[in-house]
Amino acid sequence: MNKFQVFIDENKDILNDFAKKYIEKTDMPELLKKSISYSLVNDGKKIRPLSFLYLLKYYGEDFAEYFDVALAIELVHTYSLVHDDLPEMDNDDYRWGKLTNHKVFGQDVAVLTGDAMLTLAFEVLSNSNIKPDLKVKLISQFANYSGAMGMIAGQIYDIKQKEYEVNADYLRRMHSLKTGKLIELPLDFACQIAGKVEELSDINSFGKELGIAYQIKDDILDYYGDFENIGKLPSDEDMITYLSFYGIEQCEELLEKHTTSAIEIARKLKNCELEDFSNYLLKRNK
Amino acid sequence: MNKFQVFIDENKDILNDFAKKYIEKTDMPELLKKSISYSLVNDGKKIRPLSFLYLLKYYGEDFAEYFDVALAIELVHTYSLVHDDLPEMDNDDYRWGKLTNHKVFGQDVAVLTGDAMLTLAFEVLSNSNIKPDLKVKLISQFANYSGAMGMIAGQIYDIKQKEYEVNADYLRRMHSLKTGKLIELPLDFACQIAGKVEELSDINSFGKELGIAYQIKDDILDYYGDFENIGKLPSDEDMITYLSFYGIEQCEELLEKHTTSAIEIARKLKNCELEDFSNYLLKRNK
Repeated sequence: MNKFQVFIDENKDILNDFAKKYIEKTDMPELLKKSISYSLVNDGKKIRPLSFLYLLKYYGEDFAEYFDVALAIELVHTYSLVHDDLPEMDNDDYRWGKLTNHKVFGQDVAVLTGDAMLTLAFEVLSNSNIKPDLKVKLISQFANYSGAMGMIAGQIYDIKQKEYEVNADYLRRMHSLKTGKLIELPLDFACQIAGKVEELSDINSFGKELGIAYQIKDDILDYYGDFENIGKLPSDEDMITYLSFYGIEQCEELLEKHTTSAIEIARKLKNCELEDFSNYLLKRNK
Repeated sequence: MNKFQVFIDENKDILNDFAKKYIEKTDMPELLKKSISYSLVNDGKKIRPLSFLYLLKYYGEDFAEYFDVALAIELVHTYSLVHDDLPEMDNDDYRWGKLTNHKVFGQDVAVLTGDAMLTLAFEVLSNSNIKPDLKVKLISQFANYSGAMGMIAGQIYDIKQKEYEVNADYLRRMHSLKTGKLIELPLDFACQIAGKVEELSDINSFGKELGIAYQIKDDILDYYGDFENIGKLPSDEDMITYLSFYGIEQCEELLEKHTTSAIEIARKLKNCELEDFSNYLLKRNK
């Protein structure tokens, strides 16, 4: 049995429950509680927060102490999707097999809900149980990875791709920023919190390879997938993706290549947990 | 001559220049640099960041050391306006006498620009020259004041006011959150950074009174103002404001009352600078 799958089975519901209760106990307006919980607590894979907790556990940390940091990570991921789904962005009606936030709560509330989740992520992280010096460093890095030099840069390169010459480098840079940064960050955070700085460089290389692999796998799932399986409708066909750029066969090869590179790093670190994580992402069907 | 006016005259251009250079030296996509600078560097009053620096100076601090914190404050204020102006929100075409961000860059870029400014605020603050313990506290407070328990709560109460019974309490709470929180925060931050914790409670009471006064003054300016003066078109007439709720005469009285309360606190603190700041806000004409 894949160890990451086991970890998901043991912890996903606990994480969803933690998130729900966290939002409930705040004194934000009821409408915001409902809207945030609607998007945050869902049937998604929760790969980012769970990979963070999973690696902390491997390092021998009491990972249950860090559910708030996991929540902060998921808040940033989810806010980006709520804004991404807006009519002026990807204009998606469905996500996780249910209506997108703006379809349920309206566009105005969806904009504010995304803003609120992003802001809350920093509040949650700043209140977490990490020593001040390290916490300040993580907050800075979190903002950098998810902001205008990270994830949002990738989103800009994505929506404005018609203004650029899209080649292999462009595609890779776009996805390294848009998807990769938030795949790398949870592993990086776990490594720093556990004080395993001697592994940090390898963990980051591992995260970069998996970030690329993750996006390619998404494109492949889009190609084969149906609504029932992936919970959303296929992407805009005008946009250049790994799939439209390389074709399905070369995509399968690239997925294999980047996953193998990640696994080699995991083996170098003698980290079976990360090897299982790589294989989980390779074989996932949604 | 009003001391706050003098401080504005001496420092507003320097702050705009600092902001412009800060954005320019980052490695975000050129489009984001342009879009962020377009909204951030403008003819606005910059009351929030300048009141922060002004109070720091009064406390004897080298306020030039804290332009980055001032920038973080202005980034959050500006992001909220960029999102507020979106078609699904207030649908405003003009701000500071020029086209709003989404009219120039498109709605998709405007959403991402707001997200990027909010995220950057936390990066800038986390990299500022403040001791880690205090910095973590300020980051938490910053997120709280500007998020779902603060400014965004106020925005929700504003856009959804038709679903509530709007009475005097509701109106006051809405504006205390939507406008007041970001008027209070700069003064609070200056007080904490200067280590004047014995004054913090009074400074906060002062900020609360001025926050209410500020919003009432805005409504009065809306009533008398023309486009050339206030740089934007009047607000949606369907929405309940201090003006539509109390009428112009009672608004003038309320403005006087809250400003007087603020000035009394400033006098109690023997702080002529804050008295001048109150008078500046009372008499401003845009």
